[in-house]
Amino acid sequence: MEKTYTHQDLEQFVVRVFLKMGCPQDQAEKAADILITADLRGIDSHGVARLSGYVQLWEIGRVNTTPNIKVVYETPSTAVVDGDSGLGLVVAPFAMKVALDKARSAGTGWVAVNNSNHYGIAGYHAMEALQHDMVGISMTNASALVAPTFSMERMLGTNPIAVAIPADKEPPFVADFATTPAAYGKVEIQMRKEAPVPPGWIQDAAGIPSTDAFAVKKGGAMLPLGSDREHGSYKGYCLGAIVDIFSAVYSGANYATWVPPFLSYLPLPDNPVGKGIGHFFGAMRIDAFRPAQEFKAHMDRWIRRFRSAKPANGQARVLVPGDPEREMMARRLHSGIPLIEPVVKDLAQVAKKFDVPFGD
Amino acid sequence: MEKTYTHQDLEQFVVRVFLKMGCPQDQAEKAADILITADLRGIDSHGVARLSGYVQLWEIGRVNTTPNIKVVYETPSTAVVDGDSGLGLVVAPFAMKVALDKARSAGTGWVAVNNSNHYGIAGYHAMEALQHDMVGISMTNASALVAPTFSMERMLGTNPIAVAIPADKEPPFVADFATTPAAYGKVEIQMRKEAPVPPGWIQDAAGIPSTDAFAVKKGGAMLPLGSDREHGSYKGYCLGAIVDIFSAVYSGANYATWVPPFLSYLPLPDNPVGKGIGHFFGAMRIDAFRPAQEFKAHMDRWIRRFRSAKPANGQARVLVPGDPEREMMARRLHSGIPLIEPVVKDLAQVAKKFDVPFGD
Repeated sequence: MEKTYTHQDLEQFVVRVFLKMGCPQDQAEKAADILITADLRGIDSHGVARLSGYVQLWEIGRVNTTPNIKVVYETPSTAVVDGDSGLGLVVAPFAMKVALDKARSAGTGWVAVNNSNHYGIAGYHAMEALQHDMVGISMTNASALVAPTFSMERMLGTNPIAVAIPADKEPPFVADFATTPAAYGKVEIQMRKEAPVPPGWIQDAAGIPSTDAFAVKKGGAMLPLGSDREHGSYKGYCLGAIVDIFSAVYSGANYATWVPPFLSYLPLPDNPVGKGIGHFFGAMRIDAFRPAQEFKAHMDRWIRRFRSAKPANGQARVLVPGDPEREMMARRLHSGIPLIEPVVKDLAQVAKKFDVPFGD
Repeated sequence: MEKTYTHQDLEQFVVRVFLKMGCPQDQAEKAADILITADLRGIDSHGVARLSGYVQLWEIGRVNTTPNIKVVYETPSTAVVDGDSGLGLVVAPFAMKVALDKARSAGTGWVAVNNSNHYGIAGYHAMEALQHDMVGISMTNASALVAPTFSMERMLGTNPIAVAIPADKEPPFVADFATTPAAYGKVEIQMRKEAPVPPGWIQDAAGIPSTDAFAVKKGGAMLPLGSDREHGSYKGYCLGAIVDIFSAVYSGANYATWVPPFLSYLPLPDNPVGKGIGHFFGAMRIDAFRPAQEFKAHMDRWIRRFRSAKPANGQARVLVPGDPEREMMARRLHSGIPLIEPVVKDLAQVAKKFDVPFGD
């Protein structure tokens, strides 16, 4: 059973919760905006469904709601930001702003972040660049769930990459994807249905490809984009690895099996190699390459050419990255955000804990 | 039937050919080094097997062997380079050097290139950064062979991405991969054998997935990394698209279906939207983020952790990106580069055309 909420009501609720956790007003609002934007864009796994997870990390002292976030190292086009264990939802906007500022003076800005937490959807941060006529890049590592090609062990997170590119009259190009064939949320849906998953998504505890949706839970792993060697899984492994290194080896955060988990009941890995989880952001002024108007006119043309590509037999149309999420957002801004029952119950508990109204 | 050649003999031969084409000595040597490095690393499709293709492009006037390559636009951390229709093998090293110079002063350097041609293996250019304690990035677009998710039409090249990351005692991390499940060369091998290709590599002229190795030749297309929607092919499509935009929309080169083909007998697309093909290079000083020695010590640790990951049942070991190519290079430096008969014949014809000795 689903219940539908307006984005305004949900956002107000989330802001109140973050305020009760001790966040300053502006940070509570920004963090809430990131979560609600995920729900509006249809990335339900990264929206308000995550709120109780952030609350629990705060309760056990792994999230600091009054962090002293600061630049600890820099050059004209780069910086490292220490997130001071702040919410990723607060640390990431700070770091992306540093990247945008660097790009203003140097043409591009590149910021690696340590000592952070889960930062919501990667795409939100990349899209911050668009209003400034810049290309935005965002990536983050995450706790190990993915086995490299030939590995039995989980070594990498689902490590997403987002790239947002401005156009003129066309809506922007926005790619935002985990470096796995499917999101773990899709495996969870199959578990709830007690149904199998397609071959090529996961492997079992022995490292053998499996269609048992419970295989990951029973010690298996997600596979990298490409699924198996014959279909280029080593390329998905490369991508996840690059995200891990850019996010954590540049910044001094934890990498590989040392990345701390999002779930508060899971123990922190022993002998950490860095601080918290890591992110990496980039901003590139389009007029650092050619006049902005010229770039945007060509992006329009690029987008129109792809949107007019002849569809394969049986397909309605060819999409441009960002189209599905933008269309979902238009619908949900109008008719509300549907939440499944477990999420509604979860939010009701959070509401009770902090004595803030929810869905009344 | 294969014949084996020392890399020195092959390199000397290729240098002589490029000199006969009118390249200056230093450029002929660099271009030859790029081709021979491909062969040494086992990327046979991008080595001397391509030489006659470059010769043919030069013969029809699409390659200029005395180009006036220059920076035409710049900021402290970015530049656009016009390749003046030079060999990609000559233009790319020029542009990568600009990226390295920018990084020296600004922390990072980012260079988009127009008016170029096929640049060899992407990884070569990325690896140029390693000796300077920098991370190197290299990508290029190519003529359309890949159909985006849901598309019947070929819209993107196999658009490779390479990232090279220095370590200390361990060899560097080198990822270098096309954004498709398999290289087109592997499809060609199946055609020669008249054998099918695995599902998930290609589609037929109607846009329906096919195992017929001849399907691409008969108007079909390669599929993006991920193979189908259920396995994330839209992510491979995003990657190919990002490479196309960074290489050509930043620089003013041709993109999408307008990218000129490598094969000289194929016509140039009508109504070009830019100049030649495009590349994109990046260089990031590791000490733009933290002291170089600290970064390299953590890269060693990252590499060792992955190399010691427990292998899946039936697998011998987990590889780090760059391992297979480095091991192949060690073997071929010692025992030579094997060439298949069609390549030997091809090179013999080139030798005859320019009256230079080959394999005598």
